[in-house]
Amino acid sequence: MDEEYMKLAIELARNTKGQTSPNPLVGCVIVNNGDIVGMAAHLKAGELHAERLALQMAGDKAYGADAYVTLEPCAHHGRTPPCADALIDAGIKRVVIASDDPNPKVSGRGYDRLYDAGIKVERGCLKEEADTLNEIFFHYIKTKKPYVTMKLASSIDGKIATTSGESQWITGEEAREDGHRLRKEHDAILVGVNTVIADDPSLTTRLPGGGKHPVRIILDRHLRTPLNAKVLNDKKASTWIVTSMAEDSAGALLLKEKGAKILSLDPTDVGEVLERLAEKDVTSLLVEGGGMINDSFLRAGLFNQVVHYLAPILLGGKDAKSSFSGEGIHHLPNAEKLTLTKQYTLGSDIKFIYKRGMSNVYRDR
Amino acid sequence: MDEEYMKLAIELARNTKGQTSPNPLVGCVIVNNGDIVGMAAHLKAGELHAERLALQMAGDKAYGADAYVTLEPCAHHGRTPPCADALIDAGIKRVVIASDDPNPKVSGRGYDRLYDAGIKVERGCLKEEADTLNEIFFHYIKTKKPYVTMKLASSIDGKIATTSGESQWITGEEAREDGHRLRKEHDAILVGVNTVIADDPSLTTRLPGGGKHPVRIILDRHLRTPLNAKVLNDKKASTWIVTSMAEDSAGALLLKEKGAKILSLDPTDVGEVLERLAEKDVTSLLVEGGGMINDSFLRAGLFNQVVHYLAPILLGGKDAKSSFSGEGIHHLPNAEKLTLTKQYTLGSDIKFIYKRGMSNVYRDR
Repeated sequence: MDEEYMKLAIELARNTKGQTSPNPLVGCVIVNNGDIVGMAAHLKAGELHAERLALQMAGDKAYGADAYVTLEPCAHHGRTPPCADALIDAGIKRVVIASDDPNPKVSGRGYDRLYDAGIKVERGCLKEEADTLNEIFFHYIKTKKPYVTMKLASSIDGKIATTSGESQWITGEEAREDGHRLRKEHDAILVGVNTVIADDPSLTTRLPGGGKHPVRIILDRHLRTPLNAKVLNDKKASTWIVTSMAEDSAGALLLKEKGAKILSLDPTDVGEVLERLAEKDVTSLLVEGGGMINDSFLRAGLFNQVVHYLAPILLGGKDAKSSFSGEGIHHLPNAEKLTLTKQYTLGSDIKFIYKRGMSNVYRDR
Repeated sequence: MDEEYMKLAIELARNTKGQTSPNPLVGCVIVNNGDIVGMAAHLKAGELHAERLALQMAGDKAYGADAYVTLEPCAHHGRTPPCADALIDAGIKRVVIASDDPNPKVSGRGYDRLYDAGIKVERGCLKEEADTLNEIFFHYIKTKKPYVTMKLASSIDGKIATTSGESQWITGEEAREDGHRLRKEHDAILVGVNTVIADDPSLTTRLPGGGKHPVRIILDRHLRTPLNAKVLNDKKASTWIVTSMAEDSAGALLLKEKGAKILSLDPTDVGEVLERLAEKDVTSLLVEGGGMINDSFLRAGLFNQVVHYLAPILLGGKDAKSSFSGEGIHHLPNAEKLTLTKQYTLGSDIKFIYKRGMSNVYRDR
């Protein structure tokens, strides 16, 4: 029965994907004498945690009940008081937990507080499933960098355009719509200034049912972003420009007037860029190229998954563009093996999800 | 019950894949009063057809029996007398057939002969499955060209080498062994002379349990194949050189002395090359590049399937080699949609099989 209730708690959490950032997905189910008396998920950062919402629903019936929580309850005072205390105060007699707190500095403190109050604690129930759910958040907490998705869309032979430069559209409508879903699910989207100059993209989420836009990040060493670029004028989402130029340089001031945020640091230092973005609550980042940007993330080894939309066509052409330009990997053994974890058919295209570092527990099956 | 017996007949035929060329795969089961009294497959061109082998096994018990044959029995005198006559002479009372004869000139004649003898004929039992089995043979008969498989092996981003030229090995051992299985299953293998000069490949089948070598075809316009090339000296398989030079030119005579066969025709005319190969009983051709050869088959639109071994790595590099060089497809709508029909995991690599022309009945599911 424990697994049944935990499955429900996980399901509650799963449905809030994309709306809790920078907080994790958490679900909670409270069971008294075989009846579910409370169920909730954390809905939005700054609002009540899942445990408190479920306890509210349970009211007096929480007394003597079992609580199923997908993540170790917090024991620290953040924007809300510790959930461990709330469970204790409500008279919960047993707590079943899936994932441990990913922050090594506080991991275990929630358990300790519950133990100390005489509550029976069961750990690790459906842990792997719950860990997978918070893959992005756990990576963010542990590495202090966003979870990075590299998006590629190409022919079988890796081309993103024909010899004569035609690229609209290699993939079909369904794959392109799925690409917008990726934007919705990520906190931020990143492109190089060359892409802004060449294509003037809006980088917004365009889905039939709407959906939040990611923060738009432009790597722009010398502040070459045109002042009439869509990302500076459409007011649809925040635009942050990462540049080597000073924040009070003339160009930077003009961009700030346009509403852009200027992050002054070396845009070619991918690790530094990611750390600065994480400090600003970006837990997940979608990298959409172009070729030089993809190359710098590839060679820095700083990406977590590759989403590859593959059109089942061959384009050929020695000079037809690929997803990557620049140097690439020189020495074959340095090319890290990814793992194909998922595959979907989207119209006549295929979506492949490859993951790095599959030795860890967040393996997505 | 008809389908059960036909399934067995198809299974018998399936197991002779690769050994009957230029003949089709054919299986036959003879059933008398609910007992199987004969079962056979055609084993090798020039030897007895499946019907005759099964009738031999059945002996007197063929009289009054049902025969299940995967392909319309022949009605013409080839290397062996017509099988339709053999069925009639043995006293078979009913014949169940899966595939029609693919040759429009003779299709139906086998049926006619059986009808005329008063035998009950049932057509189309498991037709699709049986048609798929003889995909290669049917293509060969209908188009008078070999069935062409283009083999590619690359990284996710379509690279076959790193920026610095390292290419051994992008795919792992299991994928490479599977590549040798492809060689065994094809009548011939084709490469350009540049590949011979650069890599001096042997182009033989190297499988743990052995297996027939394909005929080695070199497209070599100006007869630049080195006289010390492995394909001219290892005596392991026939080597045919397709060249614009005359068959009695000095270079051609030297190559003939080495045992090579010279086919004098324009090697850049892919259609003409295929027709000449078909005339010489090549029913299936494996194209293994390099880039210019792949490009000419791609642009001629003369290939039937693409086998893509994909190593789950990213190599990047603007100047890293792809599977195709040359012109490629200029206009995006001219890039024909292929259909991914099968997928296998081979070690850490993935094998994808894409087919062209999936509107026909030979769809491989």
